[in-house]
Amino acid sequence: MRPTASPARLSTDSATFEADFRARLHWSAETDAEVEQRVAQILADVRERGDAAVLEYTKRFDGLDAPSMASLELTQAELKSAFEQLPAAQREALQAAARRVRSYHEAQKKASGESWSYRDADGTLLGQKVTPLDRVGIYVPGGKAAYPSSVLMNAIPAHVAGVSEIIMVVPTPRGEKNPLVLAAAHVAGVSRAFTIGGAQAIGALAYGTHTIPNVDKITGPGNAYVASAKRRVFGTVGIDMIAGPSEILVLADGSTPPDWVAMDLFSQAEHDELAQSILLCPDLAYIERVQAEIERLLPQMQRAGIIAKSLNGRGALIHTRSMEEACEISNRIAPEHLEVASSEPHRWEPLLRHAGAIFLGSYTSESLGDYCAGPNHVLPTSGTARFSSPLGVYDFQKRSSLIEVTQAGAQALGAIASVLAHGEGLQAHALAAEMRLDK
Amino acid sequence: MRPTASPARLSTDSATFEADFRARLHWSAETDAEVEQRVAQILADVRERGDAAVLEYTKRFDGLDAPSMASLELTQAELKSAFEQLPAAQREALQAAARRVRSYHEAQKKASGESWSYRDADGTLLGQKVTPLDRVGIYVPGGKAAYPSSVLMNAIPAHVAGVSEIIMVVPTPRGEKNPLVLAAAHVAGVSRAFTIGGAQAIGALAYGTHTIPNVDKITGPGNAYVASAKRRVFGTVGIDMIAGPSEILVLADGSTPPDWVAMDLFSQAEHDELAQSILLCPDLAYIERVQAEIERLLPQMQRAGIIAKSLNGRGALIHTRSMEEACEISNRIAPEHLEVASSEPHRWEPLLRHAGAIFLGSYTSESLGDYCAGPNHVLPTSGTARFSSPLGVYDFQKRSSLIEVTQAGAQALGAIASVLAHGEGLQAHALAAEMRLDK
Repeated sequence: MRPTASPARLSTDSATFEADFRARLHWSAETDAEVEQRVAQILADVRERGDAAVLEYTKRFDGLDAPSMASLELTQAELKSAFEQLPAAQREALQAAARRVRSYHEAQKKASGESWSYRDADGTLLGQKVTPLDRVGIYVPGGKAAYPSSVLMNAIPAHVAGVSEIIMVVPTPRGEKNPLVLAAAHVAGVSRAFTIGGAQAIGALAYGTHTIPNVDKITGPGNAYVASAKRRVFGTVGIDMIAGPSEILVLADGSTPPDWVAMDLFSQAEHDELAQSILLCPDLAYIERVQAEIERLLPQMQRAGIIAKSLNGRGALIHTRSMEEACEISNRIAPEHLEVASSEPHRWEPLLRHAGAIFLGSYTSESLGDYCAGPNHVLPTSGTARFSSPLGVYDFQKRSSLIEVTQAGAQALGAIASVLAHGEGLQAHALAAEMRLDK
Repeated sequence: MRPTASPARLSTDSATFEADFRARLHWSAETDAEVEQRVAQILADVRERGDAAVLEYTKRFDGLDAPSMASLELTQAELKSAFEQLPAAQREALQAAARRVRSYHEAQKKASGESWSYRDADGTLLGQKVTPLDRVGIYVPGGKAAYPSSVLMNAIPAHVAGVSEIIMVVPTPRGEKNPLVLAAAHVAGVSRAFTIGGAQAIGALAYGTHTIPNVDKITGPGNAYVASAKRRVFGTVGIDMIAGPSEILVLADGSTPPDWVAMDLFSQAEHDELAQSILLCPDLAYIERVQAEIERLLPQMQRAGIIAKSLNGRGALIHTRSMEEACEISNRIAPEHLEVASSEPHRWEPLLRHAGAIFLGSYTSESLGDYCAGPNHVLPTSGTARFSSPLGVYDFQKRSSLIEVTQAGAQALGAIASVLAHGEGLQAHALAAEMRLDK
């Protein structure tokens, strides 16, 4: 049967808009209790038995029967050879993308990731020292969603931050390796790579095993087991975020060719059936043209089935009273990807408070950002852009406050600290300050 | 009985050093299954029944029987009046501390929290827009560990970031309010405050109730229930970190008066019995002098019982071969507070890679930093300084990537994106890029 796509049609004018809108947006990140319990067991087992446990789970879940953990390590030579055997066009595209991603993240480090300090009037030195993490783990999904671009997007910011060891894990179900993923690991400068996945890989990275060194932070997306495992090891190691389904929101004033917008909606919907594509537009005639392009283009798509399911189940074309109202609704959604398909993108950008990435103007398709514009494609999903940020150099750095109080400074500060410490009933704190007062 | 304190004596020269060292450091952040289950129930109940559930738990756990949630709100007038009724010395100390904390965080925002962008050779605009969170919740513990300074340290960075609504929750067991906490809320500019606590307060902030607005992020320390609840709501809202017991590590070259160092060790130990105070020093005679000062000063301390238990159970005086080795061990610990009690603090600082805050030189007691030097006193504990940072303005901001590709830029980028997208089997991504290529 030929798939058809009918995203929900909503209008802010409608009396039922609020209810319809909430129903469309609803998505719950909660993992079920059974997944949670199994993950807890796997993590405890990996912590207890190390390599042996990881090998057993790899056999059971990935159908990969290896004699030792060492045999699951991909050598640098193997990564390099994967790269060299790619067609020239892919080799060059990977390298060009890596160059641009690196250069953007270098600018990011310079703008917001450098140490700083100053001295106040008393001569007191205050500031922060910014240092890279020592060792990080990067989780790369295997199977149907094995994206080499994600290897670049996770490893390059770590590299730019100055992380000295980057350990990649990628499951290879039944031993099937994705050459583009291996090649990307070579281009991005991954230090070591293991073909393991799931909760067992997260446990190995968090606790360390005989073969796999424990890391300081784990980044990268994964399935429900991986997400639950990351949540559990948070505190033992750092984690980036718990990713939900991917989303795109297009704010359109009607000036972008409607087939471009239809294809941009598809490019999110083709990820998986839970992905969400939303159009917000004050021009009803334009919405009809986009809908017509959706119908025209869908049959030509290789992933038409997934696109149709995603659009029918979670997509929406929303008619708004104005662009201003569209911006306000976008802020309520706090989308992962936000395209401003407008001839005046800089008129609307200041109104947009919450989004993972903002793509300005008709030529800026999300897919350019996904691969090679430079900014990171690991972005906060499911409304978490209200409080979190794209993956960046800052995720692979941490800060230490620096304080140097002079003898003069200790007199002024000691008097204040003494009063407050006594007020909190902390006598030792007070005395430590008072002892430094001149006699 | 008079308490005595004998921190463990370790030496890096000893054959058993590694084992002794690991045993001393061991502390597990894992919550027990029973706490986890009860917290899950409380959160589900608050999500379901809102105010009614919060009122019931507040009655049960805090012994506070209130007729309505509205009656648990502290008015701005009440906060202001608490401030005005303080003794003048406390009022002035609170204000002086707030001024310094504000000025430090303003410098922090300027150094690492501003928007940035640039255009590349194709005219493509790339950058990040930094915006404040809309609304945050601050958890302030009640009872024995009610620290007004923590109100300043959480609320002021949020304020400096530009957060428009700061909601404070603080449990008041049996209705007992801490006037200094209320006064600090006034000084720090808290928008609204409620006398609720525990997992029920975290649930109310994360999901919202009829009376309590849902927030975007929750910061602040709490007991095991609060920590478990924060971990569970992570993803629905942002959280800062899961705090463990407080720690101090003093690196001493023997140039600081030993009674100052003894008191600094006490000032951490007096927090609670699980707090950890460690001295690292290459000079054995100096270690003996610090030990003697510990014995001499302990009987004078109001919290001698807690200090003794903390030092006996978790304290350590470690003799190292050199200052360099002491720095290396400090890096393995990644302490929350790190004092460099040395006449050459800038000689050692570059060797120190992991720490929440570094206090340089003999006059810089940790307690000055705790209250009023300016930097934040909410710091990563239990070795998490390996991957996380002091609470800061950046915790109350988030970033949105900005991308604007010109028509010319879309030609160069489109060719790269097309190759990579086809390589990943994502045809819609490829076509979205190809459609923007000039015909």
